Amino acid sequence: MFYTDNKLQFPVRVERPDPLFARALQQAIGGVEGEIRVAMQYFFQACGARGNPKFRDMLMNTAAEELGHIEMLATAVAMNLEGAPLSLREEVAADPVGGAVLGGMNLKNLLSAGLAAMPVDSDGVPFDMSHIYASGNIAADMTANVTAESTGRVLAVRLYNMTDDPGMKEMLSFLIARDTMHQNQWLAALQELGPATSVFPIPNSFPQDKEQQEFSYAYLGFQHDGSEPAPGRWSEGTSPDGKGDFSTRIMEPLGQKPVLSPAKPGGGAQVEQEQAQPPV
Amino acid sequence: MFYTDNKLQFPVRVERPDPLFARALQQAIGGVEGEIRVAMQYFFQACGARGNPKFRDMLMNTAAEELGHIEMLATAVAMNLEGAPLSLREEVAADPVGGAVLGGMNLKNLLSAGLAAMPVDSDGVPFDMSHIYASGNIAADMTANVTAESTGRVLAVRLYNMTDDPGMKEMLSFLIARDTMHQNQWLAALQELGPATSVFPIPNSFPQDKEQQEFSYAYLGFQHDGSEPAPGRWSEGTSPDGKGDFSTRIMEPLGQKPVLSPAKPGGGAQVEQEQAQPPV
Amino acid sequence: MFYTDNKLQFPVRVERPDPLFARALQQAIGGVEGEIRVAMQYFFQACGARGNPKFRDMLMNTAAEELGHIEMLATAVAMNLEGAPLSLREEVAADPVGGAVLGGMNLKNLLSAGLAAMPVDSDGVPFDMSHIYASGNIAADMTANVTAESTGRVLAVRLYNMTDDPGMKEMLSFLIARDTMHQNQWLAALQELGPATSVFPIPNSFPQDKEQQEFSYAYLGFQHDGSEPAPGRWSEGTSPDGKGDFSTRIMEPLGQKPVLSPAKPGGGAQVEQEQAQPPV
Amino acid sequence: MFYTDNKLQFPVRVERPDPLFARALQQAIGGVEGEIRVAMQYFFQACGARGNPKFRDMLMNTAAEELGHIEMLATAVAMNLEGAPLSLREEVAADPVGGAVLGGMNLKNLLSAGLAAMPVDSDGVPFDMSHIYASGNIAADMTANVTAESTGRVLAVRLYNMTDDPGMKEMLSFLIARDTMHQNQWLAALQELGPATSVFPIPNSFPQDKEQQEFSYAYLGFQHDGSEPAPGRWSEGTSPDGKGDFSTRIMEPLGQKPVLSPAKPGGGAQVEQEQAQPPV
Amino acid sequence: MFYTDNKLQFPVRVERPDPLFARALQQAIGGVEGEIRVAMQYFFQACGARGNPKFRDMLMNTAAEELGHIEMLATAVAMNLEGAPLSLREEVAADPVGGAVLGGMNLKNLLSAGLAAMPVDSDGVPFDMSHIYASGNIAADMTANVTAESTGRVLAVRLYNMTDDPGMKEMLSFLIARDTMHQNQWLAALQELGPATSVFPIPNSFPQDKEQQEFSYAYLGFQHDGSEPAPGRWSEGTSPDGKGDFSTRIMEPLGQKPVLSPAKPGGGAQVEQEQAQPPV
Amino acid sequence: MFYTDNKLQFPVRVERPDPLFARALQQAIGGVEGEIRVAMQYFFQACGARGNPKFRDMLMNTAAEELGHIEMLATAVAMNLEGAPLSLREEVAADPVGGAVLGGMNLKNLLSAGLAAMPVDSDGVPFDMSHIYASGNIAADMTANVTAESTGRVLAVRLYNMTDDPGMKEMLSFLIARDTMHQNQWLAALQELGPATSVFPIPNSFPQDKEQQEFSYAYLGFQHDGSEPAPGRWSEGTSPDGKGDFSTRIMEPLGQKPVLSPAKPGGGAQVEQEQAQPPV
Repeated sequence: MFYTDNKLQFPVRVERPDPLFARALQQAIGGVEGEIRVAMQYFFQACGARGNPKFRDMLMNTAAEELGHIEMLATAVAMNLEGAPLSLREEVAADPVGGAVLGGMNLKNLLSAGLAAMPVDSDGVPFDMSHIYASGNIAADMTANVTAESTGRVLAVRLYNMTDDPGMKEMLSFLIARDTMHQNQWLAALQELGPATSVFPIPNSFPQDKEQQEFSYAYLGFQHDGSEPAPGRWSEGTSPDGKGDFSTRIMEPLGQKPVLSPAKPGGGAQVEQEQAQPPV
Repeated sequence: MFYTDNKLQFPVRVERPDPLFARALQQAIGGVEGEIRVAMQYFFQACGARGNPKFRDMLMNTAAEELGHIEMLATAVAMNLEGAPLSLREEVAADPVGGAVLGGMNLKNLLSAGLAAMPVDSDGVPFDMSHIYASGNIAADMTANVTAESTGRVLAVRLYNMTDDPGMKEMLSFLIARDTMHQNQWLAALQELGPATSVFPIPNSFPQDKEQQEFSYAYLGFQHDGSEPAPGRWSEGTSPDGKGDFSTRIMEPLGQKPVLSPAKPGGGAQVEQEQAQPPV
Repeated sequence: MFYTDNKLQFPVRVERPDPLFARALQQAIGGVEGEIRVAMQYFFQACGARGNPKFRDMLMNTAAEELGHIEMLATAVAMNLEGAPLSLREEVAADPVGGAVLGGMNLKNLLSAGLAAMPVDSDGVPFDMSHIYASGNIAADMTANVTAESTGRVLAVRLYNMTDDPGMKEMLSFLIARDTMHQNQWLAALQELGPATSVFPIPNSFPQDKEQQEFSYAYLGFQHDGSEPAPGRWSEGTSPDGKGDFSTRIMEPLGQKPVLSPAKPGGGAQVEQEQAQPPV
Repeated sequence: MFYTDNKLQFPVRVERPDPLFARALQQAIGGVEGEIRVAMQYFFQACGARGNPKFRDMLMNTAAEELGHIEMLATAVAMNLEGAPLSLREEVAADPVGGAVLGGMNLKNLLSAGLAAMPVDSDGVPFDMSHIYASGNIAADMTANVTAESTGRVLAVRLYNMTDDPGMKEMLSFLIARDTMHQNQWLAALQELGPATSVFPIPNSFPQDKEQQEFSYAYLGFQHDGSEPAPGRWSEGTSPDGKGDFSTRIMEPLGQKPVLSPAKPGGGAQVEQEQAQPPV
Repeated sequence: MFYTDNKLQFPVRVERPDPLFARALQQAIGGVEGEIRVAMQYFFQACGARGNPKFRDMLMNTAAEELGHIEMLATAVAMNLEGAPLSLREEVAADPVGGAVLGGMNLKNLLSAGLAAMPVDSDGVPFDMSHIYASGNIAADMTANVTAESTGRVLAVRLYNMTDDPGMKEMLSFLIARDTMHQNQWLAALQELGPATSVFPIPNSFPQDKEQQEFSYAYLGFQHDGSEPAPGRWSEGTSPDGKGDFSTRIMEPLGQKPVLSPAKPGGGAQVEQEQAQPPV
Repeated sequence: MFYTDNKLQFPVRVERPDPLFARALQQAIGGVEGEIRVAMQYFFQACGARGNPKFRDMLMNTAAEELGHIEMLATAVAMNLEGAPLSLREEVAADPVGGAVLGGMNLKNLLSAGLAAMPVDSDGVPFDMSHIYASGNIAADMTANVTAESTGRVLAVRLYNMTDDPGMKEMLSFLIARDTMHQNQWLAALQELGPATSVFPIPNSFPQDKEQQEFSYAYLGFQHDGSEPAPGRWSEGTSPDGKGDFSTRIMEPLGQKPVLSPAKPGGGAQVEQEQAQPPV
């Protein structure tokens, strides 16, 4: 169950509203690296968490935090849109630099939302909930969260560098700090589950002797000239899960040339497809 | 540039075609955990890789591998669909267990594809390329790849447990082994970039003194009763990036109650919204 | 800013887990009539609310309520999935009625989420945030909310009638009651804005003398035989906004036959399209 | 069955083609507030209408009208695109204001459509038919239609204010008038179904004594400090459906802390999730 | 401008309602091979047609026909859903074959539409307007229409073979006949534009001497072993556009190994990516 | 199985990087006319090909070619983005023409990808795999491929005309040449299947005497005034499939006025819908 106090987690100030920066900020709301994604991802991971209940509680606690980040960013978008032109004529009267504003801003922020934020990315593409990764495997979920916060911090840094508005820089320096924490939080949660050698390969509940083990630690090569593929830490030494030694293997096809049965009569294929000889 | 030899990486055999299992296999083709995702993700990461060129080469090499996995799975889907009923009448004649086949299978595999595979998930939802994470930050990309292979192996294990067809189990035991390798491969690639303490927080190019550092390693609490949130490795000890010590902090709102300006006349709001007093 | 207490708003009990009902419940989570939609819709309407601040506060307050409804339903889905078969073989052993379970349940609930809820609808289609209507016009928003709660209550009633599990019926009777309240809440919010005659037509800030007023209250007929279209309250009497009297008018084309200019050379059309005579 | 006469319902004139305005107009074609939405929504509501057949006829009649509106707007988009630059070089030669044209226009209007309209919104996002609300409940459908025409008129007003082309203003003044009529038409259709007290809560076929009635007219509070939520018409007086009196209630969790069963062995979770103690 | 008469183009009768067949029919409404697609595709092609106006008129005339087909199919879906179970209990009481009905039918047809049709495909995926191909090149449009009617007839044939309801077979035999006509209609429209040798390659307005002509009629080989690719009509003889002779060429890379510049400082990459040596 | 050599099929050079042209090029990667589409379409058609195996081999061979085209274009996008501004301030300092760059470029190319390519179109909309047409009917597939290469060449020509960078023009002249070949290749593949008179109507496996043959070659008229629709090659002479003679027929409704049964009690409709008289 959730509660609110209608206040912002951290101050949101905009000294010089900039509709183009509003468009950029939309990526942090509705982009795949954005805050809707992490809020809903931690929420659904919490709802489906099986096993040690502390994970559920921790995930839901941080989901609450991320909801507040959406609120901050949506406020920032609306503030940056204040003063945006409503008409092409209004724009023409503006200075040359400003002349690109209506063309450069996201028109839906005006046309659909009346100068406010939307759950869309910087190109106006709506966020799609298929990006909520909640796998039922708590370790896999933690890796997804590290990814989310890594790409999220990359995005926040790009936004920080894009603007020179002091208020916006301050807000982003808070969000960047939180991304720092959250990257560490999910890495620490992986450690809570055990050392890498007991967590990986994920899921650790599948007996590895059922794998085709000659391929479990082989870096396979698919170079046209049959040469070895680019070597690195991934081609030599002990594997990070501690259960194998990396090797390199030039791959050759082990399987057949696939031949399907002729088309089944009545299945809407051409007659010639139905009359082909069945594979032997 | 790519080449093909029209053969399969590993044998694909189906002893007892099962249209319902064909539907399940579609998740491994067009699901967010599936093979189109990894093939295209490594491909686009390679195309945008800046810095040490060995990453580009390694990524493109493994993209080629994953293309072959799509081919294997698409063949497996088509084989599992052979013998599927084309009509409701045909179904009625079947045994009681089989009676659920046409209802349970993905109808588009028949109606749109003529008993063959499609780039959709197990519910017939087409794969959407927004799931290709290629961030321009090589470390963030590696975390995304660990996630992809972790959720991918979880999926492959579920499919392995779902079927008892020996051919399908054999094919999946190969794919599970490759997921084992690839989890390790991307973890190793992170190690190639340096120890966690130099890689994290991602991006490592942003000076942390510009962060609001009091929040960089604080596990914030958002519990309604003001209690501490669920403790764990994430709330005490040194952070995995080695740059801070975890602490817990009950969060209170530091920002204002957000008040936007009145609606701009001409902007399509109600009159009453335009006439509100501006915020002070 | 948001807080949580990790408890459920209302008890969620499942006496006889039913994976097919889990699939149906997904519609109430990630369907267009579902709880993600209302939670996020009220949230974004609040964030963009201009004018009287009580609307922002009220919207955010109810957004918090709806977040708790997602949590309840996600719990219900996970509980209904407990006991679901993991394999086709496991299913075969089940009773005839249960024989349809694995075919009828949403496979992604198993394959992607490990027997837990996802932000998708009953067919596994992910929720898409374009359904969040937050127009910047507070009256239009209230109509959108009446719609959301009307279709939401229709859905909840259908789910109530679909199950005979006492726990599920109890939970749904709570959600149906809340939908009753919320329909009334948004209708009342419209009344708060003034009587229909001052609220409509939305937006009330556009001077109606700029409309083509002969068409503002005319029910236009497009019947092939030139007859009057189906009459009703909409074709006679005073209009609900009190500003006109309904009439009926058989429509005839008032505009030209559209003729575009020839294709611009260099624009990728066929030569013949470029050489057409320009319209006179 | 449908017929056409290849003429426009109302004149479409463009005096000064403006590719940026063409992009804005796309929102009225393929945006969620646009004409494809209403045309298809009324069409599908008509096709599924059960009960009094006059609703079907009226809905299909107005669907025919809206198809003509798409045609008008698509013509307007094509006309506004005439004269758009085909090359970056062509643009450089243009005046400073025009200098932003190719950057500001929707490139797909050129690249995919050859300077013509597309079924996309102002950001080039294709219209998605999940926005067609046709619920099988005629009253819920009418509320959805009021919403569609309210947001539609808000959009048309914003477009009207954006342009100063006399032809475009004339066309939009017609469409705004039709939105006025249609808002009234659907409100009137609700009245045709009976007074609010018999129509609401929707659906009116569910016996309210099966609801958890103590929550049916309570405005619930979720404020973190336990204070009353923002009061209004929605918290006092008789409810608009006439069946209750509004009250305010500070909400507390009535349900349990959710605890799911341990992960099912074979389900792809971590071992630790399978070994958790089952909930008591 | 469009008109309607509320009658069906062709009789729609259902003797034995079948909810599973209703789901299959949805593919013909909202599938990519379905009737919404052709109706809207011809509509938008008409609206953007430049050049000889007879194409616009013909396209819009046939768009009107296709709208009537959606109406027929939506009626057929609703009729097939009559008698569908509303509850799991209702289902259990049914016969074994019927036991799979609620699991096999599209639940949204019940939950969202109240036993009526929706603009979705047979898996409940909403139709997405990006499938409307209207390129601004009339010849390319005609090829898209041949495709639409070819895949459309394949689908209709599969549906015909799936059912043994006489009414449904009769309706489908009409739709199949129309697909026959429309395939021929668009092929004839291509002929109207001239013989293949003047229409192709599309667009015929681009001077072929600007192509890299050594590749214009070469069938390129990408076989891993350097062998010739599978020969056929496409590798020998005069090309169908009459402008070249087919040949086969084993392809080798003509371009460089791509090397991008180091990451730009401030762009959110890792430090190591910024410090790489620039390409020479 | 696939192999790579990490080199480009054809040289990719950019003399004057242009971020706006990078955005345009995205359409050729992730647009519906782009290279992901053809690569994946030929790939899936190959995987599902039944009948003569030479089609499978030829399709997979050309799929390998198209993968290389994506690689070329992704490299071109990254090169055009080099030098793009990272900040609004950086932009202001630029020349007036350049002043529109950050507004005109696709912000996700910076914010999500760090100045590299993404699998999205020129408006940042991700490619959606529902555009992969692989019908199971080899002739229908070939028509889809002709369409893909026709719209693809139209797009490439528009891009060629948009830029004056010599390197980009050279690359596009290669891709245009390949589109010329591929249009011819698929037309030739249709010829390989037999003359049009044996291939059409597709599928040729459905006995035409089961069609409602009076409608199989009739060009139906839906003009409001009952006049003949626009005549052309499609209304007279022998049909391209050689099996009929075109005629024109003014269409009148042959079907009933559709009347559905009253709403089923318990189905969530209004009471009034349940109480309607059943149709006679």
